[in-house]
Amino acid sequence: MSVGGLPREEVGMMMGLGGVALGDPPADYGSIAAVGMFVALMCVCIIVGHLLEENRWMNESTTALLIGLGSGTVILLVSSGKNSRIMVFSEDLFFIYLLPPIIFNAGFQVKKKQFFRNFMTITLFAVVGTLISFSIISLGAMGIISKLNIGALELGDFLALGAIFSATDSVCTLQVLSQDETPFLYSLVFGEGVVNDATSVVLFNAIQNFDLANFSSFKFLQLVGSFLYLFGTSTFLGVATGLLSAYIIKKLYFGRHSTDREVSIMMLMAYLSYMLAELLDLSGILTVFFCGIVMSHYTWHNVTESSRVTTKHAFATLSFISETFLFLYVGMDALDIEKWKIVSETYSPMKSVALSSIIVALVLVARAAFVFPLSYLSNLTKKTPGEKISIRQQVIIWWAGLMRGAVSIALAYNKFAKSGHTQLPSNAIMITSTIIIVLFSTIVFGLLTKPLIRLLIPTRHITRELSALSEPASPKSFLEQLTAGGPDPENSVGIRRPTSLRMLLASPTRSVHYYWRKFDNAFMRPVFGGRGFVPFVPGSPTESSVPLLAPVNES
Amino acid sequence: MSVGGLPREEVGMMMGLGGVALGDPPADYGSIAAVGMFVALMCVCIIVGHLLEENRWMNESTTALLIGLGSGTVILLVSSGKNSRIMVFSEDLFFIYLLPPIIFNAGFQVKKKQFFRNFMTITLFAVVGTLISFSIISLGAMGIISKLNIGALELGDFLALGAIFSATDSVCTLQVLSQDETPFLYSLVFGEGVVNDATSVVLFNAIQNFDLANFSSFKFLQLVGSFLYLFGTSTFLGVATGLLSAYIIKKLYFGRHSTDREVSIMMLMAYLSYMLAELLDLSGILTVFFCGIVMSHYTWHNVTESSRVTTKHAFATLSFISETFLFLYVGMDALDIEKWKIVSETYSPMKSVALSSIIVALVLVARAAFVFPLSYLSNLTKKTPGEKISIRQQVIIWWAGLMRGAVSIALAYNKFAKSGHTQLPSNAIMITSTIIIVLFSTIVFGLLTKPLIRLLIPTRHITRELSALSEPASPKSFLEQLTAGGPDPENSVGIRRPTSLRMLLASPTRSVHYYWRKFDNAFMRPVFGGRGFVPFVPGSPTESSVPLLAPVNES
Repeated sequence: MSVGGLPREEVGMMMGLGGVALGDPPADYGSIAAVGMFVALMCVCIIVGHLLEENRWMNESTTALLIGLGSGTVILLVSSGKNSRIMVFSEDLFFIYLLPPIIFNAGFQVKKKQFFRNFMTITLFAVVGTLISFSIISLGAMGIISKLNIGALELGDFLALGAIFSATDSVCTLQVLSQDETPFLYSLVFGEGVVNDATSVVLFNAIQNFDLANFSSFKFLQLVGSFLYLFGTSTFLGVATGLLSAYIIKKLYFGRHSTDREVSIMMLMAYLSYMLAELLDLSGILTVFFCGIVMSHYTWHNVTESSRVTTKHAFATLSFISETFLFLYVGMDALDIEKWKIVSETYSPMKSVALSSIIVALVLVARAAFVFPLSYLSNLTKKTPGEKISIRQQVIIWWAGLMRGAVSIALAYNKFAKSGHTQLPSNAIMITSTIIIVLFSTIVFGLLTKPLIRLLIPTRHITRELSALSEPASPKSFLEQLTAGGPDPENSVGIRRPTSLRMLLASPTRSVHYYWRKFDNAFMRPVFGGRGFVPFVPGSPTESSVPLLAPVNES
Repeated sequence: MSVGGLPREEVGMMMGLGGVALGDPPADYGSIAAVGMFVALMCVCIIVGHLLEENRWMNESTTALLIGLGSGTVILLVSSGKNSRIMVFSEDLFFIYLLPPIIFNAGFQVKKKQFFRNFMTITLFAVVGTLISFSIISLGAMGIISKLNIGALELGDFLALGAIFSATDSVCTLQVLSQDETPFLYSLVFGEGVVNDATSVVLFNAIQNFDLANFSSFKFLQLVGSFLYLFGTSTFLGVATGLLSAYIIKKLYFGRHSTDREVSIMMLMAYLSYMLAELLDLSGILTVFFCGIVMSHYTWHNVTESSRVTTKHAFATLSFISETFLFLYVGMDALDIEKWKIVSETYSPMKSVALSSIIVALVLVARAAFVFPLSYLSNLTKKTPGEKISIRQQVIIWWAGLMRGAVSIALAYNKFAKSGHTQLPSNAIMITSTIIIVLFSTIVFGLLTKPLIRLLIPTRHITRELSALSEPASPKSFLEQLTAGGPDPENSVGIRRPTSLRMLLASPTRSVHYYWRKFDNAFMRPVFGGRGFVPFVPGSPTESSVPLLAPVNES
């Protein structure tokens, strides 16, 4: 995947946000003030998000977006509209620093049992579904947008639009769907979201690097081939890095000397897998996602207990901070007035609204066009009615995947702001429309999701007891609920089996799962460690729980 | 404190290391390749450091330095000496991203009892001692270096040299002194190192911002005044931010909803305190150090159990990663051949060696000149022989603080590479000499410290049993050893009291400590939380230990 393509000046903005200047302090203060202000705003987001936790409308993403918009407005007013480039959305910042922790954590915390059991359905939605969505949006854009007289748009531009707006926002999805109330839907929509991100990015890059001038069916096959190649190699790289980390930690047994080394090596190797994928032009998202899955299956079991607690929460925290940063950033970036000026000078205000509305309509149609047929297909393979996806659930799946987020913005910048800085009006209007769509879909669709779920799934179906568990928001308690739902031979806890949300379990998937378990136990775990295969070293704190609970230091 | 002053181009290098180019790949790859290479090298450092753990000569800093030197050489050879600017030591990278986690963690993990009990001695060494060292090095440099005919050096340059080489390297000190074997010495040298860093930076900035043309005794008093002001306000800011975080977390009780929010708010507020201090021209190091102390005394007790384990290890890990990065970076930066070319064109090779040797000699003398007299002074206030600092211990204190590290390099860059890029030969030779001294002192003095301690303190005095504890490298077990050593009314564990390393406890300090405890219990803890003052909320996982120990997710 090609990251960047922005001029060197913007690469420099990556972390320092070097161009930020409130008023006109000396250059030294610029980056400190920017970073400081951002950190302060993130604190505000976290506190406000906490206070609004009980609110049935808001979620953390929307809160951060609105705070970002608000503070952007304040800065714009303070600088009397002069500082149009308050903050530049740097793709590198997004793809190198913010996205990896979010996606890695998604893989690390994903309920593997549930994920792999629904693997067929998730893949169907995320790969075939995204391709359908991509085709419909591209064709629709070609048919309708070309009549708007926006400017010289080529075939590549329309295809890019299709890829850009096929990327659902998995970060926001995570927050509007409650893992406690709708575990099956959550697993499906979330799983789809992660793989869909990867699909869109891979698709986008395949289009970018492709000679579209003479398109033929042979070339189309080539496109499909390179897509599958990217998918396979990226997954392989992630799995390999994860296994390497498990092997290193198992062989060297870092915990003997220091917890910090274990945690560091897990962090660094996960990041390394992403970086390697980017360097090799693969999909870093897929790689780091599978690296997270492998690490939680093998590596995590090889480390000491303190490292286990630490990694579980530290990765979640890093991901949480990145998400908050991201939405804050997107909110502030929406107020970069330079683009809006270019757009308003060339087009009537209605044209930008019309363009955005058309794309939103296309997104709505395109998602409906694959969710309902593919659900029907998926239901054909299921035997009992409880395993099928009901119409109400299909509506929620359709709705919860409508949000478009930072991936869309990053891809849009890559496509339409590559050369120079959105000087072409046709490029500028694409960027502003993307921002309008992201804000609209996140805020409007996001706000309506919770009420919609309450409307469609009556409260008696929502397993109330579960929310009384000790750690409502923790992934582990969610896991317990998930594993409790399915017919799981290993599950000794067996809390309860909610009938309406019974797990889907097609027989072919089941037998694959069975052979995988045999192989895992016979070969993989003895080599790479994992639950039940970690040698007990005397003197190591692996088995004692008391030290963890003692205070770190006393006054 | 003024951070930066480098041209905008270098600010851009901060995190992206944007200028890095191995061979000549497209610009996009530059930053990814650099970050990826760095991450890979850090993994190597951690693994090699782990393998050399048992080695009596090596320590982690030296390992990272040598690996940095080695890989720098390889890159230089691969690029056939063309890429002289492989990696630019950016002050911003150091002061904005690497130093805060290291110093915050130092404050967070510091044994507060031990630290405050030895507070008088530590302050004596770190403030008065650093001032003595500063004077001697400045005067010595004025007397000797001015005869070397290096170029036009002014009074300000000599004073800056004094401040630069008065900063001991607390990071490296942490690694050569074993907290298990010599807890008292560790606390003293480490406490001195942290406060000394702050002293040097404050001193350096005071000199920089001061009109040295007409120096008078009144101006000297002004200098002392601004020094004390900076010290006081920085400490106050750190304490205030720490208390604010404790208050917010206690009042809002984040843990009810999410562990991640608690950990995030602790991280972000600690970082915010540093940023605020920098923005207000205070000493960020002092601020974040005291913020760490307050957070571990109040905030840490207000969060859930999982957050406690997570913060304890996550902060240590972040600090560990920063340290490794730092030494790797310093090692690679030493090979920036541009500076060496300028130096070799103007001076004879002997001049650089002579300059470095003179400064090393001055450092040796200057440290001896305050360690022995101040130890004598400190011993005068102690009554029993067990409380005094023995001559052998004094020798170790002298020796263990001789290393100069990244703070010296960062200050030297600030002083001598501010305008342009070391074009003046006299500036270039100062930079190269600083690098020589840092490498020499870290490697030679660092390598000799462990054997020296073994020589001076016979093994029978080293409390062997302690190293058999479950977590040898963890700060908590060290804490137990420390609290076990002193006559502590609260200490119910009471493992054992090593006589030779008996704690120093002067009566005045003791009564201050006593009144502080009364005040703390009567007013501070009820408001800000802290051990024993956190309300138990039913349904919160604060008191249950089992969830922590269950696996995060199962296959």
